[in-house]
Amino acid sequence: MKLNEPMIIVNFKTYLESSGKKAVELALKADKVSKETGVCIVVAPQLVDLAKVAEAVEIPVFAQHIDPIKPGSFTGHVLAEAVMAAGAVGTLINHSERQLKLSDIEAIIALTREKNLISCVCANNPSVSAAVAALKPDIVSIEPPELIGTGIAVSKAKPEIVTDTVNMVHHICPDITILCGAGISQIEDVSVALKLGSRGVLVASGIVKAKDPYNILHAFADATR
Amino acid sequence: MKLNEPMIIVNFKTYLESSGKKAVELALKADKVSKETGVCIVVAPQLVDLAKVAEAVEIPVFAQHIDPIKPGSFTGHVLAEAVMAAGAVGTLINHSERQLKLSDIEAIIALTREKNLISCVCANNPSVSAAVAALKPDIVSIEPPELIGTGIAVSKAKPEIVTDTVNMVHHICPDITILCGAGISQIEDVSVALKLGSRGVLVASGIVKAKDPYNILHAFADATR
Amino acid sequence: MKLNEPMIIVNFKTYLESSGKKAVELALKADKVSKETGVCIVVAPQLVDLAKVAEAVEIPVFAQHIDPIKPGSFTGHVLAEAVMAAGAVGTLINHSERQLKLSDIEAIIALTREKNLISCVCANNPSVSAAVAALKPDIVSIEPPELIGTGIAVSKAKPEIVTDTVNMVHHICPDITILCGAGISQIEDVSVALKLGSRGVLVASGIVKAKDPYNILHAFADATR
Amino acid sequence: MKLNEPMIIVNFKTYLESSGKKAVELALKADKVSKETGVCIVVAPQLVDLAKVAEAVEIPVFAQHIDPIKPGSFTGHVLAEAVMAAGAVGTLINHSERQLKLSDIEAIIALTREKNLISCVCANNPSVSAAVAALKPDIVSIEPPELIGTGIAVSKAKPEIVTDTVNMVHHICPDITILCGAGISQIEDVSVALKLGSRGVLVASGIVKAKDPYNILHAFADATR
Repeated sequence: MKLNEPMIIVNFKTYLESSGKKAVELALKADKVSKETGVCIVVAPQLVDLAKVAEAVEIPVFAQHIDPIKPGSFTGHVLAEAVMAAGAVGTLINHSERQLKLSDIEAIIALTREKNLISCVCANNPSVSAAVAALKPDIVSIEPPELIGTGIAVSKAKPEIVTDTVNMVHHICPDITILCGAGISQIEDVSVALKLGSRGVLVASGIVKAKDPYNILHAFADATR
Repeated sequence: MKLNEPMIIVNFKTYLESSGKKAVELALKADKVSKETGVCIVVAPQLVDLAKVAEAVEIPVFAQHIDPIKPGSFTGHVLAEAVMAAGAVGTLINHSERQLKLSDIEAIIALTREKNLISCVCANNPSVSAAVAALKPDIVSIEPPELIGTGIAVSKAKPEIVTDTVNMVHHICPDITILCGAGISQIEDVSVALKLGSRGVLVASGIVKAKDPYNILHAFADATR
Repeated sequence: MKLNEPMIIVNFKTYLESSGKKAVELALKADKVSKETGVCIVVAPQLVDLAKVAEAVEIPVFAQHIDPIKPGSFTGHVLAEAVMAAGAVGTLINHSERQLKLSDIEAIIALTREKNLISCVCANNPSVSAAVAALKPDIVSIEPPELIGTGIAVSKAKPEIVTDTVNMVHHICPDITILCGAGISQIEDVSVALKLGSRGVLVASGIVKAKDPYNILHAFADATR
Repeated sequence: MKLNEPMIIVNFKTYLESSGKKAVELALKADKVSKETGVCIVVAPQLVDLAKVAEAVEIPVFAQHIDPIKPGSFTGHVLAEAVMAAGAVGTLINHSERQLKLSDIEAIIALTREKNLISCVCANNPSVSAAVAALKPDIVSIEPPELIGTGIAVSKAKPEIVTDTVNMVHHICPDITILCGAGISQIEDVSVALKLGSRGVLVASGIVKAKDPYNILHAFADATR
């Protein structure tokens, strides 16, 4: 499976505003925006909400994390087969709030390739992005942790982090899709992100905690065109 | 909420035999056995299967793990509020396949108390059980990791582990329910477990991987009476 | 081995002021104060400084951490036999900056008992202290992490944390020595700590980063008498 | 600082045969072999033995691990400044027995560069080696964990792992030194390792647990010439 570009991934994190029934409602808004604008919008709800969200929408649904495991004795872990059965077509990997050992990142990417899941690996700086690129995931998302949740967009505050990532990742593997995240809250943040060479954004609080998520997401989608 | 004793908790782990639709089917069998026998049976499916399982059955459903977090920025983590919204009434904590820092165990137990979730904390030996008892969870389950998945029951192979746990836990906190697990696969394992002073069993492969889970679980339930 | 009470443990952490040659110099000051006052003072330098410090002083030297391992293939881990060969007579365990899984804490305490090393387990609140007490270490040190390094002493700011710990720990195991730490920087903090029922203090920046560590430590020692 | 090639790194792990006084004795044998053969031999003793070993020998001494920290409040962690003060000129990073998060590997390599320490990062397969190469450490050592301690050498049992690593690492960064390890116990294992394109070996039990470490190490050194 291959997603259209540019794309917007909405990370639901563990906000109450995007939990349970509200997860489904928010995902439906994203679904509507995607259909109205033709822009690829992915939603990444909590694991417990995955099945309900995937049933409700036609846009791609990602898990927020999977573990590098085969079916078996792994109480409390996240099995690729189970998230796929629930309707996920991809997964975030190594988000700055759920960082992983290097060998686990490699094993999870290999697992997603085997299972035909889309892999989106997060990286905290351009060097880490380059290391991730050598593992050939589908998507690398650069997110400086110091800007996450601040409302100060990486694309505006530290544009060189985006351009360095684009250069370093594409030097190692030219066909990886690069997203950027952290602090994306203004419409302009999205268009600047694309101008810097990324192919979309990974957003969370900027949408989830917005007064009107539908309107903001619609504006973000428009800004990618 | 308080569960009836004796009880059987079925841990679905991440087996394919208890994933997706099969999770619901297995949970329905447990539900049937519970209704037929009057014995309290709890199911603990994977997080992605939690909502579907909880919708399908009337018996108590547990999460396999929750994280010591409040709603917020915790990508890939497990929020108590979200598992409750999905229908869980309790959670396993510190399973030997998902071991936690001591301060996190304490924080999760405090969270379950605040949220009125039932806490079942796993311990690998009697000393660890005693330490857990000081944190006053609802249930302590003693599971020597070396016997998990072997088919050699703790209640038969190492009865002193069960009796030591009963003595040490009740010395510290008399009203904690004690379960035992690891290798429980024969009907006799269950009755012996109760004779040793435990109030039930935590089982996984013995039921999930059985040729006829309904029959075995029915026999286990009968053995507790 | 048994230490005299009251006692002061000086945690050198990874400050430059207590690294390398300065570790030995600081330890010698502690040694001098101990001899002049008769008060038991323990120093806990970094692992790389352990051998040099232990050679230079007669007071007890602790490791800051050991791992729950036997001799073998554990690259980068800390072997009890090796820290003992270097001259350590005890170890900190589960410091809030180096927190451990519950089963590892239990295994390390068992190891210290087998090796006749003194165990000092840190806990972040009274409940965790009680859990630790069930594992019967020699010393429990209560240190609320939110006060560490603040200069606001636990004994003054949150005296109930100390008294609750004393009550809960001694209810489970009466012969455990209880220390308190976090923010201890004034002479009065030490005397209050003892009045609340602790048998000494665990200090770090209050001594290591003091302008005149010898004088402060001397005053702390005097305050314990 | 730059080491001569080919090189042999002897990882002392936490074996009793390479702890305390025996660490110094073994390091002296390595020192002797290096002087007699002119071959670069590095020793990586436990942290507590680092200072004594570095005082006793003239060959390069590595730490087995350092943490991505600055001087400060990091009880039980390993400070670059402290291992340097003890005489280390480099460090192993991410050994399969001490695996790290990707962002920590990147931060430690950046720290070694800043401090002019030699970085030797271990990787468990060619893909992980390539990811590490993007971070530009001085040395990448490929060690399939399933062969560690077996006496079955990676260079003989899985030569393609070594050649794939050489190709993939040098494609990303041509001037990284590549070593291989795991199961190296025969003289031939060393010469084969070099023929496959590596520039030396990382050995542990093959030397440490040998009846006559001096003789084996001498033969290994001869085999690199």
